[in-house]
Amino acid sequence: MRSAFRDQLEGLWTQMTELAQLQVVAIERASSALLDANRQLAELVITEQDVTEQLQADLEINAMQLLAKQQPVATDLRLVLATLPVSTALARMGGLAQHVAKATRLRAPESAVADKVRRTMTEIGGAATEIAGTLTRAIQERDAQLAAEVAASDDGMDALHRQLLTQLLAADWPHGVPAAVDAALLGRYYERFSDQAVSVARRIRYVITGAVEDR
Amino acid sequence: MRSAFRDQLEGLWTQMTELAQLQVVAIERASSALLDANRQLAELVITEQDVTEQLQADLEINAMQLLAKQQPVATDLRLVLATLPVSTALARMGGLAQHVAKATRLRAPESAVADKVRRTMTEIGGAATEIAGTLTRAIQERDAQLAAEVAASDDGMDALHRQLLTQLLAADWPHGVPAAVDAALLGRYYERFSDQAVSVARRIRYVITGAVEDR
Repeated sequence: MRSAFRDQLEGLWTQMTELAQLQVVAIERASSALLDANRQLAELVITEQDVTEQLQADLEINAMQLLAKQQPVATDLRLVLATLPVSTALARMGGLAQHVAKATRLRAPESAVADKVRRTMTEIGGAATEIAGTLTRAIQERDAQLAAEVAASDDGMDALHRQLLTQLLAADWPHGVPAAVDAALLGRYYERFSDQAVSVARRIRYVITGAVEDR
Repeated sequence: MRSAFRDQLEGLWTQMTELAQLQVVAIERASSALLDANRQLAELVITEQDVTEQLQADLEINAMQLLAKQQPVATDLRLVLATLPVSTALARMGGLAQHVAKATRLRAPESAVADKVRRTMTEIGGAATEIAGTLTRAIQERDAQLAAEVAASDDGMDALHRQLLTQLLAADWPHGVPAAVDAALLGRYYERFSDQAVSVARRIRYVITGAVEDR
């Protein structure tokens, strides 16, 4: 009985890791599709979100069944309760990657990224993929230090986002309103992706250390 | 013991209702501040978000203590577990109202709303306030029918959001890039506000009826 319980708790960690890994793939593909105006890759990101949502639903059900049947306490309870907001936030990251892919699809075969912000958008895509990767390792290795690094790398994302807005609001912006609106919304999707990663990282850190989040 | 337990469950409903009510006030004030370029009212929305976050934290703690000490089952467990994502989403609605207020503050004493989209933005603000109001009543009265109405009114918000984007992407948009970007981001905040309300409504409906969400 107790052994099955421990297996179920381990299963939550495994599923959270898988769900995080899916978001690394999603944001990497979405960013690549965006920069290359690659409609097929964008379509793949959009349809793969189903896998994320299915896994999120499974994870929620597993956590609830554990709560109902095993009545965990202390550290175990902390883990089980964290899986609910963590799975929601991870699925939301996938939803934001999907938004990037939909913006790509809308403009393809044209690019949704104006020349003037291409370099910044490339950096933003790279930063988002890195944040998701660090988050995944933090969960996989249950490493509070890595979880803290996610919050730190989010500062870099904020700086890139400000840089993007400065570029597209500059008086000499040459690409017109639709291109500026595309860039502003894309920037917002990436910013939220990163915010969600930070929120997951805080909760993971709390599960590992029991220390209250510093925000 | 059981009576204290029932009081605690009732307390969760009361706190969820309060948290929802705060978001009605927040989005109503934020929309009013936005349309009147009223910096003071915008500041109030921004600082009042602290109250929302405090209440969210209290609600989470109460739910976790209930879980840990009372080990609720069946319908009660459904309620206690729902309070976690519900409180997160309600607080996020406050965060989005705060974003509207910050956009207002950034442009004040100028208006962040260009003339051409003023009418649409007025309707969007009104729709968001109405959605939050219906959601609050659904929680307060534990009314599954009202919760279903929230999902229906979200369709109206989507239509208004599309109308806004059509206006600001029109070839004859006269207000320039910054005004278009402001409008696009504001539209996105309201759209997300409404999405979060739908997500809360679905969970509330599930708590009341036990029926799986239709999405």
